[in-house]
Amino acid sequence: MNFTLPGETGYEKLTLDLAKRWGADVIRDSDGTALSKEILEAGYQIYSTICPIREHNPWIRENMNARQQNFLSTAPVTATGDELKIRLLDGFFQDQFSVNDSENALPYWQVYDRTADVPVSDWSYADGVVTIKTTPFRQYTVSFLAWRDWEEISMYNHTTNNWDKEKLMQLNPYAPGCMDYLKGWFVTWCKEHPHSDVVRFTALFYNFAWIWGSDPRNRHLFVDWASYDFTVCPEALDDFAIEYGYRLTAEDFVRQGKYCATHRLPSQKKRDWMEFIGSFVRRATRELVDIIHTAGKKAYVFYDDSWVGMEPYSGKFHEMAFDGIIKCVFSGYEVRLCADVPAPVHEIRFHPYLFPVGLGGAPTFSPGGQPGRDAMGYWVNTRRALLRKKIERCGLGGYLSLTEGYPDFIKAMDQILMEFDKISTLHETGTPAVLKPKIGILHAWGKLRSWTLSGHFHETDNFVLIHVLEALSGLPYDVEFFSFDDEIPEGLDVIINAGEAGTAWSGGACWEDESIVETLTQWVYDGGMFIGIKEPSAIPGYATYLRMAHVLGVDIDNGEKACHGRWKFESENSVSSMYKTRKDVILTDGKARVLSADGDIPTVVVNDFGKGRGIYLADFKYSPAATRDLMNLINFITLAEGVSDNPNVECTVFPGKIIMINNIDAPQAASCRWNEQEYSAQLKPYEMREIEI
Amino acid sequence: MNFTLPGETGYEKLTLDLAKRWGADVIRDSDGTALSKEILEAGYQIYSTICPIREHNPWIRENMNARQQNFLSTAPVTATGDELKIRLLDGFFQDQFSVNDSENALPYWQVYDRTADVPVSDWSYADGVVTIKTTPFRQYTVSFLAWRDWEEISMYNHTTNNWDKEKLMQLNPYAPGCMDYLKGWFVTWCKEHPHSDVVRFTALFYNFAWIWGSDPRNRHLFVDWASYDFTVCPEALDDFAIEYGYRLTAEDFVRQGKYCATHRLPSQKKRDWMEFIGSFVRRATRELVDIIHTAGKKAYVFYDDSWVGMEPYSGKFHEMAFDGIIKCVFSGYEVRLCADVPAPVHEIRFHPYLFPVGLGGAPTFSPGGQPGRDAMGYWVNTRRALLRKKIERCGLGGYLSLTEGYPDFIKAMDQILMEFDKISTLHETGTPAVLKPKIGILHAWGKLRSWTLSGHFHETDNFVLIHVLEALSGLPYDVEFFSFDDEIPEGLDVIINAGEAGTAWSGGACWEDESIVETLTQWVYDGGMFIGIKEPSAIPGYATYLRMAHVLGVDIDNGEKACHGRWKFESENSVSSMYKTRKDVILTDGKARVLSADGDIPTVVVNDFGKGRGIYLADFKYSPAATRDLMNLINFITLAEGVSDNPNVECTVFPGKIIMINNIDAPQAASCRWNEQEYSAQLKPYEMREIEI
Repeated sequence: MNFTLPGETGYEKLTLDLAKRWGADVIRDSDGTALSKEILEAGYQIYSTICPIREHNPWIRENMNARQQNFLSTAPVTATGDELKIRLLDGFFQDQFSVNDSENALPYWQVYDRTADVPVSDWSYADGVVTIKTTPFRQYTVSFLAWRDWEEISMYNHTTNNWDKEKLMQLNPYAPGCMDYLKGWFVTWCKEHPHSDVVRFTALFYNFAWIWGSDPRNRHLFVDWASYDFTVCPEALDDFAIEYGYRLTAEDFVRQGKYCATHRLPSQKKRDWMEFIGSFVRRATRELVDIIHTAGKKAYVFYDDSWVGMEPYSGKFHEMAFDGIIKCVFSGYEVRLCADVPAPVHEIRFHPYLFPVGLGGAPTFSPGGQPGRDAMGYWVNTRRALLRKKIERCGLGGYLSLTEGYPDFIKAMDQILMEFDKISTLHETGTPAVLKPKIGILHAWGKLRSWTLSGHFHETDNFVLIHVLEALSGLPYDVEFFSFDDEIPEGLDVIINAGEAGTAWSGGACWEDESIVETLTQWVYDGGMFIGIKEPSAIPGYATYLRMAHVLGVDIDNGEKACHGRWKFESENSVSSMYKTRKDVILTDGKARVLSADGDIPTVVVNDFGKGRGIYLADFKYSPAATRDLMNLINFITLAEGVSDNPNVECTVFPGKIIMINNIDAPQAASCRWNEQEYSAQLKPYEMREIEI
Repeated sequence: MNFTLPGETGYEKLTLDLAKRWGADVIRDSDGTALSKEILEAGYQIYSTICPIREHNPWIRENMNARQQNFLSTAPVTATGDELKIRLLDGFFQDQFSVNDSENALPYWQVYDRTADVPVSDWSYADGVVTIKTTPFRQYTVSFLAWRDWEEISMYNHTTNNWDKEKLMQLNPYAPGCMDYLKGWFVTWCKEHPHSDVVRFTALFYNFAWIWGSDPRNRHLFVDWASYDFTVCPEALDDFAIEYGYRLTAEDFVRQGKYCATHRLPSQKKRDWMEFIGSFVRRATRELVDIIHTAGKKAYVFYDDSWVGMEPYSGKFHEMAFDGIIKCVFSGYEVRLCADVPAPVHEIRFHPYLFPVGLGGAPTFSPGGQPGRDAMGYWVNTRRALLRKKIERCGLGGYLSLTEGYPDFIKAMDQILMEFDKISTLHETGTPAVLKPKIGILHAWGKLRSWTLSGHFHETDNFVLIHVLEALSGLPYDVEFFSFDDEIPEGLDVIINAGEAGTAWSGGACWEDESIVETLTQWVYDGGMFIGIKEPSAIPGYATYLRMAHVLGVDIDNGEKACHGRWKFESENSVSSMYKTRKDVILTDGKARVLSADGDIPTVVVNDFGKGRGIYLADFKYSPAATRDLMNLINFITLAEGVSDNPNVECTVFPGKIIMINNIDAPQAASCRWNEQEYSAQLKPYEMREIEI
């Protein structure tokens, strides 16, 4: 089967035994492991992992200006006289950063009076300290360029997994001479690795932003998995100014110390910078991929830690000419994210990794860990999405030797791989049935951030949209992502706007454009369904806080209507999942049906509007029951064909077969109608069952 | 004693018996009652109640343009074509309003496109309907002038207390000819009422805003006890334009349908209008008061329902030459509000009124009512404030006959009046001790809204400031109110800013002025204490959401910092009352002490700043325990002299005496230090005890 096993030198028998047991066709190395001759020559295809920016310490030591950089903003400091000294690295993790006070960096520094929020020009710098002429009792910050002296994944593993290897620096591909060095290095590498069939870029060039602090009480000052904050350097900023006709400032990146998190509405400047650096990354990547292809090998890319510029939904991913994409998956939405990337091969990497500690910090292959249980948990999340969309390959990563002593994990993998293989075979027989309606997700990023927010589920689970994406990932609907700049895509039946006020996901200031409101209003009036979740279309300054309040039948009061009456209502109590809200949700005109309420606050509301309908959900947390509620609302309480009658069981219809999956760890009975026939089954915990039709 | 008893014709014996039992010196009539000759001539002073604007139906019927008016804004309606018809009174209570489409009113109407939030000029009016040329799928509102056809207190009593008397209209004193009529009426009245010693204005001219809806599911569309919305008419608006050099529009009053609630930050236009109409009210009132004085009577004013323009803390209250002010009191803060009004006599009116149903809607003197218990409850709230500030008189209102069958009420009043008399005597002996520190309350209204928000406690109890005022009303501190336009008053030790974001109480946009932040920062740095409660100094757009975050040691994250780390902390758990918060409160730099937390959210925080200190409370609900917490924070956990060691017991030090009051319905032991001596007592439920020192 299409399975990639991590091999490990010193454990040749284990490697080859498990490769045989699980039907692997590929053996890979991992970050920190090597493959022995015995494994390399055992007749398997070989993946070799390369992180292009790490493991170049000797060259970087000779070219210290080729370290990566980023802007940092100091914490605000209150002036108590007419002069203030700010030590730049105070509060930052000193092993990660040092000050870049070079001649081309200093012009990008900025001092701000944060009380008036204006830049200040009267300051000087010496020995790590900026001295500012101040107005007493205002607050000041300094934004400066910092070198990054320790690659963050290396830093993380040293700190979390007690690695004692050399601390790695990271190469800045934009630094003069760097790409020439790197291309030479790749040419040599290809020559020295004749056994490698596939070079797996374990990342591209720039990590997600991860700013560490000096105090263990607040170690991670800022983390954003889709950020571009770690991509700057004076050379790139200068080139940008020439190409785009305007110069970016430190403030464009540090935003009053808030930085440019992916969850916030992107400015045009941020979009410009992303395009500028993305274009550079694609060109540089292509040069390396060409070297690999010339050497007769394939190039795959691993989409996780440092994928800045890769942007698989930008429409330009193909420029890099990758032969495959590999995505690690905890969740269903990550399967869908991977499946639709325009690449010849899609491969998923199962969790847990064969590491002592999982990404969430809990033990996996170490005392207290239950890796078999974890694997089944993640599998159940991903399986429902795999049934919807074809993924060609799967695999594991890490230290194979760690599996010894965890027979439950081996058994779980037996089961998982058997089911993965069965699903692959089903997809060979044809495409699974897609039901009406077709769903559009509207947010500020649109297609570019299809099937993702910024990182894994557990890193973004305080944003409602990720819960919605996870629910949709296993439902039998087509889903399309579009932005406020796009036309409404043809053929949509449902549009979902799900997010917190001011975020890129709800749309924030995009809702200032009245033509958006007009267009969506007409679209619903003519028969569409608009589902707003949490604070959809929220923006202050208008008659209603939710711009789509008239369609949704609800608004949110931020205190402007403390003196206004509230419509009394009776909740129908007709949805199973209960939502709580911290917001003061109010009915607009009392005509909407309230399906669920949290005390006096309506939480699930249906409002007829013209020939269409608005639906409001105060919140949404992913669970089988909540997913079924959402499906019922989409179908408006009628059970569609091809859908099981049990929220814990989902169905996918392939040609000639219904596949039922039990998503919970308890036996379940379920039935499903298809072409006016009813099909029933008793399922074991987590079971996947094929039913002939 | 100084006690005002409501008399009732037909219950002469009851009236005179209770007058004797309670030592009344005054007998009054009430709205809807009259006094018989027997009562009038029994040797008591007589108060007569007059509401200047009600009870003039015959004259108004001859002068229908003398009805009162206000702006109304229709609910937004979505256009689905290029023309839209909006029926103006749809959704409004048709007995309250009719359309004022007179020639001088129409120029003040406005049609708004609420999707773009711009006024629209292409519309016409006929027969109660406005027809608008529209952009399809935008929303429109019409703001228009409406006559008010039913005085709201009359409307309320008809609806709530099933009155079947004539529905009363209300006179607009600004209407041409109205004041001449009214003055004549007062002259006649004075002649016809020789027994009346005091004319009690039961209100001035304009009610608080109370817009009723047609649907019983949402009867009270808008209510604001301190609003000026019910004061407009074309004549006044025209005169305003001449006097102020600019013309007010409907939008200045209806504000996108949000209206100008007192809780919101007042615009300069609103302040101008208040001054304009306030000045008119004071002039008109003075003309009536002069008539009363000329007739040899005194004029008192009752401060409650319709006090618009009276503004007892405007510095101009004396212009009306009232001889006394009467305030009904549920709460301690209302006592303080009354006590500091510059008038010769201050009188409080106890609750419950002698009515079948209380203001909150629960039965009092009717089956299920417990008026004795209610009276004691309100008394305990007010008593602690009465100990702090002198109030000359007290009284009751309503139908005396209703007290029959409620002996508990009679007994409660025996007790209350005995204690009121004792407190009055104490104030004769000298002023109670005022302890350090001196407290300033900073909000957008400043001195004008001293000791009040907008109405009674139960109408504003979702605003944190009213809880703070209620706590302070019985504490031994001087309290001064000031606004963002004022200098920080001399001699303050503590400044409190308590409110929800965007409200007049927290200050909203006032915090955009960086000099406010600078001045307060320096004031704290030099040794002051700044207490911020709930969302103090909150405003979006700056590096911190709370402008005083650097002083408070906390900020509130509205999602901008979802990717930022949070400071870990250990709560000291050193305050007794637990606060919950719906806001994401975060520590700014981890240096503050957390005294209490709601899970991971710090809720009570102390932050040293220079020689001073910032204190943050996520919320505050009035209770004896919470009041003690606040007092402890003000004194920073040290117990001052003159303060009891039991949160349920409070002390007031008069010359030679300590007064202990038990504020709860259970026996309490307490002691108090004064001049290095300790004084202890065992108190019965609610007891007030005098201790000689």
